[in-house]
Formats: sequence, structure tokens, C-alpha cells
Amino acid sequence: MDKKVIKKQKITKYMDGKLEEKMDEIAVEYPFTIHVNGEEFATMVCTPSHLDELLLGFLASEGIIRSKDDIQEFHIDEGKGLCYVTLQRQVPVSQKETGKRFIGSCCGKSRQFYYQVDVKTAKTSYSKVTVTPEECIMLMKELQDGSTLFKGTGGVHNAALFLGSEMIVARSDIGRHNALDKLLGYCLIHHIPVRDGIIAFSGRISSEVLLKAAKIGVGIILSKSAPTNLAIELADDLHITAIGFIRGGSFNVYSHPERVKPPSLK
Amino acid sequence: MDKKVIKKQKITKYMDGKLEEKMDEIAVEYPFTIHVNGEEFATMVCTPSHLDELLLGFLASEGIIRSKDDIQEFHIDEGKGLCYVTLQRQVPVSQKETGKRFIGSCCGKSRQFYYQVDVKTAKTSYSKVTVTPEECIMLMKELQDGSTLFKGTGGVHNAALFLGSEMIVARSDIGRHNALDKLLGYCLIHHIPVRDGIIAFSGRISSEVLLKAAKIGVGIILSKSAPTNLAIELADDLHITAIGFIRGGSFNVYSHPERVKPPSLK
Repeated sequence: MDKKVIKKQKITKYMDGKLEEKMDEIAVEYPFTIHVNGEEFATMVCTPSHLDELLLGFLASEGIIRSKDDIQEFHIDEGKGLCYVTLQRQVPVSQKETGKRFIGSCCGKSRQFYYQVDVKTAKTSYSKVTVTPEECIMLMKELQDGSTLFKGTGGVHNAALFLGSEMIVARSDIGRHNALDKLLGYCLIHHIPVRDGIIAFSGRISSEVLLKAAKIGVGIILSKSAPTNLAIELADDLHITAIGFIRGGSFNVYSHPERVKPPSLK
Repeated sequence: MDKKVIKKQKITKYMDGKLEEKMDEIAVEYPFTIHVNGEEFATMVCTPSHLDELLLGFLASEGIIRSKDDIQEFHIDEGKGLCYVTLQRQVPVSQKETGKRFIGSCCGKSRQFYYQVDVKTAKTSYSKVTVTPEECIMLMKELQDGSTLFKGTGGVHNAALFLGSEMIVARSDIGRHNALDKLLGYCLIHHIPVRDGIIAFSGRISSEVLLKAAKIGVGIILSKSAPTNLAIELADDLHITAIGFIRGGSFNVYSHPERVKPPSLK
């Protein structure tokens, strides 16, 4: 396992009635500050892997870029957790102007939300893709089987993009939204067509997670956890099929169930 | 269950090889915008319960108030998700000035962090409180048994404050940090002495969660999940005992294990 994303550390373990010291693997939490056109733009705390994807995905998600061609150049200083981006155009959208009302879920006060930047970047899905119930269960299992970081440390979220039943990319991060931004960044860098993609995600479907799926541009999001009512409302509006509680052979479809079809109808 | 925090909704359930419609309970995600001295200060998305506690806890956590007496008056418009606070002093600390570098984990870009507002508000613990291994396991079990919202909807985080083995207050929220802010708000409103308190938390111990515990002012935090390395470093610095992975009779102590003592030494 990559030493940058996992740190070995001495802990005190209680087991079988005894306290004893042992070594354990801990997920690294890494601050990453992005400067855009010479101005400090945002700092996130993340798992330090695939920082180029995180950068591009985050900037696209925030409406600062539409494609990687909007970036003239960027430089990541991994040691310091700093990144300097120069855009093709002169002036970035200031955080101060887009940051009003609706600033996210999860932590309470996080990313911007629906009313402003999201209106520009969250896409309504026109995908005709469908899944069988068996595929829903299988793709979620593949996501979980694939996560070695999670098995080691317990502290991360996992996200994967599928086209059909092929896993295109899987990413992990201690920040739930970062894992999804890394998917988006990967797609931008590699020009992946996402309209008929399916996202599998290890965490809860909050409104922000749903919006991330809409920004990536997929029609279906799978989760082993629950959605919120606001996420379901957004999924309804944006024509995204939100499927949650995929556990032990059953699941719930919360929006646009027309994309879930028995094999005979597919 | 309170209709404000849970919404009944029709879903499509897949189970035993069949898709069928049924009613389900969904956690409500509610935007809550706080105005301080006439200026829009922040918006969070939360579970709409105990909004007065959330308000006070959040403002204290952000360094805007130290006690409830710093607030001259406040008015919560529940229907609109708006809140208007007038402070005793004239000018609030502007978000713009405190929001630079280090802006949090979880979602990537969330609350301010350590270097600025946190330096003022995160307290080093001088608590002499200790716990036995059995108490760690028991308090976590009490937290989990107590959460009816979680059982219904799956989508929330739970936090509780214990003094000795007595549960003083337990709160749930779809936002992990909101649940902790509600604890802090409760303590401020009811003048609860927290120095020897223990927090039990359902989620991962990120740096921000650890800082919330430090802001509340306790010496021990219990979690059923994993910490990050940054959270452990902060716990070391702030003299907080961070205990994670409390599951099935075992757990890990990540910092200041001197507070965990067998019953004979307590």
C-alpha cells in the first residue's frame, strides 16, 4: 500500500480483555490548497492520491472549468500540499460571489449548492441506460471488493464509475466528495463519455453527493447507504435514478425506477 | 417519530427477486441560513431538530460567541430555514477573514480548521477522567441503542455526551458536525460542565470531528469507526484520548491511552 495514503502508527489495542500496544495502519488526511490565477481559491482535506484528478474534478464541479483545455498550466507541490493553476481566461469565478445561501450538507457548511454554481454545472440526465437488479448488486459488490485502502484503515469512501458492467475507474478518499471529484477528473483527463455511466458509491446519498453525480453526468447512482429527501427531490428533477441500501440481495429505488429492469425487459 | 425530521415516501423495493412499490421513511435534509447582525453568515444543511442548539453550538464552534450571553437575541423562522442573530457586540468576525487555508475534511471544503478560528476555540484537555474498557464498549452501545432516527432512515450521525456513565444528551443529524454542534449548543444553554465529559460518536474521527470534541471541551472521544492520522496528531497535541473501532468487545486507543484503565486501577 502507498505510504503517502497510509501511515503506520503505534496504537493501544483492547481485545480479549487485555490492553496491548501494536502497530496499525491509519488513513492519511492531507490538506491541499488550490490557487487559481494567483489567488487562494480553496483548501480541501483529502487522501493524497490522484491529486491531478481531484484538482480537475473539483474545478469542474465548482464551475471554474468545463474541460481540461480551460487550464493553461498547473503545478502541484506535493510536499507542501499546494497547487497553482493558471486558467486560459483571466479571472476566475470568485468563491465569495458564488458562496451565498445553500452551502452544503455532510459537514453542515461545505460546498456550494444548487442555487448558484450548481445551476450551471449539474446536468439533467437524458441517458437511456438501464440496469437489472442483479447488476445493481454485482456492481456494488465489485466496488467493495476492490477497495484495499478501506480494508486497511476503515476510514475512507469509495466511488467507482461503470460503463455497462465494466469498471472504468475506482477511487478512494477520506472525503466523500473528493472520491467523486476524482472520478470526474479522471473522466475529463481521459475524455470518458459518461452519459450512460453508472456510479457506485460507498456512502450516503446526500444532496451534494447526488449533485456530484449530476455534475459527472451519469444517469444512475448506486449506494449501500440511505439517501436524504433533498437528494431524492434533486434526483427526481435531474432525471437520475438513485438506488440505495444495496445490501444482502435487496435494495431500494428512490427515483426514476424506469431504469431498473428485469433481464427479460432489458 | 417527528414529521419534520422524517418524511414518508413511496419507493420501489427489490427483495426476494421482485420489484414492488412500498412506503419508506427518509431522513429530511433541511437548509438553515444564519444571519448575524444583519449579514448572511453561513448556510448549513441539517436535520431540522434542536435548531437553537445547532445555532449556539455552531456560533461557539466558529468563535463568534463564547456563551449564550453573547447573544442579545435570536429569531428562528423554521418554515423558511432562516435565523437572525443579534450579538451583544457590534461586529461579527467575518467569514471572509477566517476562511483562509485549512478548510476542513469530510466533504473536502467545509469548516475552518486549526490555523485560524480553531486556535481560538479548540481547548487542550486537562481532564483527569478515566474509563474502563467495559465502559467504552457500554457507552458506544448506549449511543447505538438510543438512536431511533437512525433505525428508521439509516441516513444520520449520532453523538452523545456522557458524564461518568450517565448520558447527558444525545443528538442526531444528517451532518456529522451538526450532531456535535448540537451537543455543544445544549451544553451552553444548560451550563453543563464538560471537562470530564466523554463523547460517543457514530462516525469516523476526522480532524474536524476531533476539533469539535476539543471545542466542546471533553477529554475522551469514542467512535465505532476509524480516525485519520491528522485527527490523531491533533488528539495528541490537545491531550484528548481518541478511541476508535469499538466493535464486538474490542477497540483501539489512538492517543493518550493513560485515560483507559482496568477497573482495578480506576
